[in-house]
Amino acid sequence: MKTNTAPPSGMRDLLPEQVELRDRATRAILGAYARFGYSRVETPALESLERLSTGEGGDNEKLIYRVLKRGGKLDIGAAKGPDDLADLALRYDLTVPLARFYAEHAGHLPDPFRSIQIGPVWRAERPQKGRFRQFTQCDIDILGDDSERAEIELIQATATALATLGLDGLTVRVNDRRLLAALVRSCGFEADSLPAVFIIVDKLDKVGQDGVRKELLAKGHAEQAVGRLMEVLARSESAGADDDLLGWVRETLAQHEADSNDGARVAEQRLSRLCDLASRHLPEGVRVAYDLTLVRGMGYYTGTIFEVSAEGYDFSIAGGGRYDEMIGRMSGRSVPACGFSIGFERVIMMLEERGGLPGEAGSRVALFHDKDADTDALLAAAATLRVDDRRVTTLVRRKKFGRQLEELESRGFDGFAVLEPGKELELRTLGGSGGASS
Amino acid sequence: MKTNTAPPSGMRDLLPEQVELRDRATRAILGAYARFGYSRVETPALESLERLSTGEGGDNEKLIYRVLKRGGKLDIGAAKGPDDLADLALRYDLTVPLARFYAEHAGHLPDPFRSIQIGPVWRAERPQKGRFRQFTQCDIDILGDDSERAEIELIQATATALATLGLDGLTVRVNDRRLLAALVRSCGFEADSLPAVFIIVDKLDKVGQDGVRKELLAKGHAEQAVGRLMEVLARSESAGADDDLLGWVRETLAQHEADSNDGARVAEQRLSRLCDLASRHLPEGVRVAYDLTLVRGMGYYTGTIFEVSAEGYDFSIAGGGRYDEMIGRMSGRSVPACGFSIGFERVIMMLEERGGLPGEAGSRVALFHDKDADTDALLAAAATLRVDDRRVTTLVRRKKFGRQLEELESRGFDGFAVLEPGKELELRTLGGSGGASS
Repeated sequence: MKTNTAPPSGMRDLLPEQVELRDRATRAILGAYARFGYSRVETPALESLERLSTGEGGDNEKLIYRVLKRGGKLDIGAAKGPDDLADLALRYDLTVPLARFYAEHAGHLPDPFRSIQIGPVWRAERPQKGRFRQFTQCDIDILGDDSERAEIELIQATATALATLGLDGLTVRVNDRRLLAALVRSCGFEADSLPAVFIIVDKLDKVGQDGVRKELLAKGHAEQAVGRLMEVLARSESAGADDDLLGWVRETLAQHEADSNDGARVAEQRLSRLCDLASRHLPEGVRVAYDLTLVRGMGYYTGTIFEVSAEGYDFSIAGGGRYDEMIGRMSGRSVPACGFSIGFERVIMMLEERGGLPGEAGSRVALFHDKDADTDALLAAAATLRVDDRRVTTLVRRKKFGRQLEELESRGFDGFAVLEPGKELELRTLGGSGGASS
Repeated sequence: MKTNTAPPSGMRDLLPEQVELRDRATRAILGAYARFGYSRVETPALESLERLSTGEGGDNEKLIYRVLKRGGKLDIGAAKGPDDLADLALRYDLTVPLARFYAEHAGHLPDPFRSIQIGPVWRAERPQKGRFRQFTQCDIDILGDDSERAEIELIQATATALATLGLDGLTVRVNDRRLLAALVRSCGFEADSLPAVFIIVDKLDKVGQDGVRKELLAKGHAEQAVGRLMEVLARSESAGADDDLLGWVRETLAQHEADSNDGARVAEQRLSRLCDLASRHLPEGVRVAYDLTLVRGMGYYTGTIFEVSAEGYDFSIAGGGRYDEMIGRMSGRSVPACGFSIGFERVIMMLEERGGLPGEAGSRVALFHDKDADTDALLAAAATLRVDDRRVTTLVRRKKFGRQLEELESRGFDGFAVLEPGKELELRTLGGSGGASS
């Protein structure tokens, strides 16, 4: 009887070719990060449900997979809701676990600590094309460094990793939460309305200026404030690559003296320096640009924020920023923190569209034999072929040998040999079909 | 306020040094397997609860982490037990998911299919030293090949991977479930009592011969049968490395003609060939030995079974065998299958005891600068150092510079440079302390 053997809804099995591309991309990214002095750490897939329900994770907390209590701890009769039935949950990101990790282990870690994390996270999203309920995140973070150096290095390392993958047309867009706040305040919005306004402005890419305007008005914000904000957004949209948009923001804020503040001035200067440094130290072909509409969804960001977009794609492929207060909320000791996360699944999707990653792999050959071949001779022959990094697969030769060779070639094999009693082993080249014939 | 920042009970955070050793061991193992033509695949961490509750997983199914249903599917009031509240569960091993994977994707996979899996599994065991509730398994399997070649190749590849890690004093112990069954039957046990007898014999290492005898008698097995079985176990224990134990078993079974059968004869011949082939084709220093007491816990094994033990350790570091019927139970189409699983956590523990893995790593240097150094100059200097695979970490120079250098050295750094305005960058060597001074 055939049972349902599909993976759970919204989750994937990964076939050999898929895993190989992912592994090669992972090696390239981790190699780039290692050269910047980052070290990989790991936390368990499960965290306490309490830890993942503090509000730190924003909307992601609604998508949590809870793990049922076990044994005597489970009291179904007394349970009023799901939180009474569960004690653990699958992590929905790598940032909250890292903050916990650092709060727990800081004494055993270098100061500042440069971390790499790559691993699966889980969100019970509505299944849809390109969205998965288990997916890989790849983050770097610097903990314990409040300087601009941390921010520029994260941008540089991430841009280098993405460039190493052969991705081009990349732009790092930067903003600062404090500057964004000052700008929205200068339009006439109240300080306590900022989080709600941010969430609406964050939808600009999806709903356009008119959509943002309508939603702001529908939420009851003052018409005059909304009108001013729309002017700011329009000015941003019309700005060319060479326009000094940051200069314009500086002047705009100066005119609203009452609403500007030291934080905004510091943020503006820092952003200006960041753009300047990045333009000189990013890998070739990676641009940096101030984007006054950049919001980033999470509530925990406290300063500089950044995202990477790629020409021809309407989604960002990496994002991050400074979150100086999260660790303090856990450990009671304030620690500056800043991170950059690569959207690994999106990057893999782009690489698949481009036909994979060039180079590497190494020779892969098949050693054919008859079904009743002498195993001892077969093992000896395989051992003579299995030198250096060559991958040797032993295979029973089929009747339709030509078709078998074609199949191997399509799987990336580049050579084969046939075990024949009394004959010397000869390694022959596979391929050329579809390739250059010069 | 300091909150509890420890990972969940029985689970671990992995610090940079730990991850580095694990990553290097993983690369060595996967490299060895790749040379035998194996390809890595991945399945989700979660499987349907139903899939993980078929009995296939034996006692591991009792240790399952269930994931709570979400939204409207969760009906707490109507739930009679935990299984009514959950629809998914975390996998407790990689074999059941692989069988599901193959049943689902066989049409897109080579035939036979050589798979590698490495990844976390979860079991809600009572927390104890050296046992974790999330731990890594590392399996290779050959699906679609019923020949002895599959078995010898799995043994060869696994032994090669373990030898690559520098582990020595390794013995591959082999047995066959059919031969074990015939032997136990020949002592006078009934066919339907075999699974229960196997479970008790499997405890031989822990409880000794006397413990096995007592438990068999306590379970009501016939005194005469128990007595004969104890003679067999005693004969096995007293056998020297050069004794032909398999020949003795052959004779013993021949004397009990009524209880022997074709399956046992085939199994005995296969084992004999396997030992012979393995002794000629295993990496240097790895022995192979027939172990008539080898049981392997899981119920799904159907033929050859194997384990690897290491001198000086009382646990096995790898185990596996043939499980020809599991995939058929899922897909309705019978597929021969055989696998070998490395106990990754135990291997890492052994490597840690030996002080890690030799070689590799690459140069790791620090670039020191003052707190108020010019970021532009710092980035430029770091870029000049960051050549080839060299890992360059920028660090603020502390007052106690000597101590800072010592700390770096203990973390594996081998060089440093100091950024000083107007001076040329000079890369100096760290180390020598504790090393050879010749």
